[in-house]
Amino acid sequence: MSRLLIAGHGSVGKAFHELLLSDATQLKSLLGEAPRIVAVVRRSGAWLDEAGVGPGATLLAKRQSLSVVEALDKVRPDVFIELTPSNLQTGEPGRTHIRAALERGIPVITANKGPLLRHYDELTTLAREKGVAFRYEGTVAGSIPTLNLHEYCLPGNPVTRIDGILNGTCNYILTRMAEEALGFDEALAEAQELGYAEADPSADVDGHDAAAKLAILAKHVLGLPISFEDVRREGIRAISASAISLARKEGYSIRLVASVDAANKNASVAPRLVPRGSSLDVGGSLNVVRLTTKHAGAFTISGKGAGGKETATAVLSDLIHVLRDAGRAR
Amino acid sequence: MSRLLIAGHGSVGKAFHELLLSDATQLKSLLGEAPRIVAVVRRSGAWLDEAGVGPGATLLAKRQSLSVVEALDKVRPDVFIELTPSNLQTGEPGRTHIRAALERGIPVITANKGPLLRHYDELTTLAREKGVAFRYEGTVAGSIPTLNLHEYCLPGNPVTRIDGILNGTCNYILTRMAEEALGFDEALAEAQELGYAEADPSADVDGHDAAAKLAILAKHVLGLPISFEDVRREGIRAISASAISLARKEGYSIRLVASVDAANKNASVAPRLVPRGSSLDVGGSLNVVRLTTKHAGAFTISGKGAGGKETATAVLSDLIHVLRDAGRAR
Repeated sequence: MSRLLIAGHGSVGKAFHELLLSDATQLKSLLGEAPRIVAVVRRSGAWLDEAGVGPGATLLAKRQSLSVVEALDKVRPDVFIELTPSNLQTGEPGRTHIRAALERGIPVITANKGPLLRHYDELTTLAREKGVAFRYEGTVAGSIPTLNLHEYCLPGNPVTRIDGILNGTCNYILTRMAEEALGFDEALAEAQELGYAEADPSADVDGHDAAAKLAILAKHVLGLPISFEDVRREGIRAISASAISLARKEGYSIRLVASVDAANKNASVAPRLVPRGSSLDVGGSLNVVRLTTKHAGAFTISGKGAGGKETATAVLSDLIHVLRDAGRAR
Repeated sequence: MSRLLIAGHGSVGKAFHELLLSDATQLKSLLGEAPRIVAVVRRSGAWLDEAGVGPGATLLAKRQSLSVVEALDKVRPDVFIELTPSNLQTGEPGRTHIRAALERGIPVITANKGPLLRHYDELTTLAREKGVAFRYEGTVAGSIPTLNLHEYCLPGNPVTRIDGILNGTCNYILTRMAEEALGFDEALAEAQELGYAEADPSADVDGHDAAAKLAILAKHVLGLPISFEDVRREGIRAISASAISLARKEGYSIRLVASVDAANKNASVAPRLVPRGSSLDVGGSLNVVRLTTKHAGAFTISGKGAGGKETATAVLSDLIHVLRDAGRAR
């Protein structure tokens, strides 16, 4: 039986926790045994239970004061799931947690962009040196299986360029501006009311989130040494209702498009005119990724980009890969 | 070094052969050693060469009169690649070839729909009993990695419904009818001139090809016991230019949509109204597959559905999986 330690219990952590419990039967049939969450560590404390931590993680009696690293040593889980909030500046505390697990030979799965964005080479090198699995499908484009699509579905067909809409909040705002002729501020306020945008929306609307995902994709899929700062970045604050309406009349939508090309190594996130109805013109809070390949043209995949449950499915698919590979190696 | 035997050397076989030769360096870096085609069997004869058969397979001096089964016994390849023409009625001769290889413990990869459509249970059961790999990504939706997407990217997130445009010829005809206000016969003639449609177009325009792919997807992805005959099928011959123009005015495209639902087990291929610009509304000869999942909504993936080179990339990705799995098992 695989014993998991989760760090972070926000929307993704909770959704992942519930998914493991609700789908235990199916996971048992897939893996032989359903994995069990034996520890949850969050800001308010640590819950350890070899019989399985309840989804609320609120059994106060059992709360312990343990840091993630202390819990890793105490629990020695089979897999560590890092889901603490992303810090795009420092990558902490995710980086410290991931390093600690890898150094102890514990496989790591994360949906936390920060550590990958800031410490990609350090962490992937450490994982390789230790011969330990390290997967992070949930860091890019939410539920869309971009990294696994590249790894498992396109071997032998190199990707030469990536274009995509990687931030659902911006896409929602731009869609609503077009549909209802709203100004940016009105559409943003609506997105905030609905919980699609944060009180401080700058990570989304200034393109930081999309640029972070693009930098991770550029490294992982194209092998390019592109940092966050290398991504030319322009947000959507300056887009006016009249610009959108003008574009619409000419048959275009305005979308915040992230692009990186293996040949010229240019990476950018910027508002672009996209032909209406073309594959990149997805509406609402959807995400889309277009992978241009050497041998078979472009593949375009769209799906829900954000959401706790959607990202939790990406974490779960990584977990299944880790456990299957470990089973094969035994 | 992995030794391959290819049966069939039409557009997919030739493209696969050329791909292996042109990408030998890359395959070597992926797999440790580039696989080598040591035998090609086609209607006009067999070419065997342990040093590697040339891409033309036209070295008359070396031609031998061997059937595929005889060649399998003589060559004993590490992997057998079945690319003979599809017969949707009988599945032969592909079925006989695949059976012969599996019975000899030789892994099989095919892009030939017929054997899967007519003998799915027999062949997959035989492969399982023998513990031999049997992969067929190239049988559905050309280059789009539908089966591998399901297997490797969505584990733990069951697919509940599949919708798609699985026949590029019909989509090309419908697109041209809409763009140029052509009648069906004119658009078909154009597609035939360009090589998108066969002289006898019925497999495409009457929906047989799409229904065959849908039946394979229903079995493989949804586990439904749906045969070709269970698919309610209607082609596009009766679609008029005026129907398309009327639909267009109301904001719709007419597309030949294949759908199967796990809950009600209904499978159909029929012309449908699709909102213009929606994810299923792809143009030209593209294919698209939408997988609706239990936990993360729908994923839609589009790409080139047909073409020798595109389908060859699907065969190559299957080959890489077979060789990697074999390498891990050693």
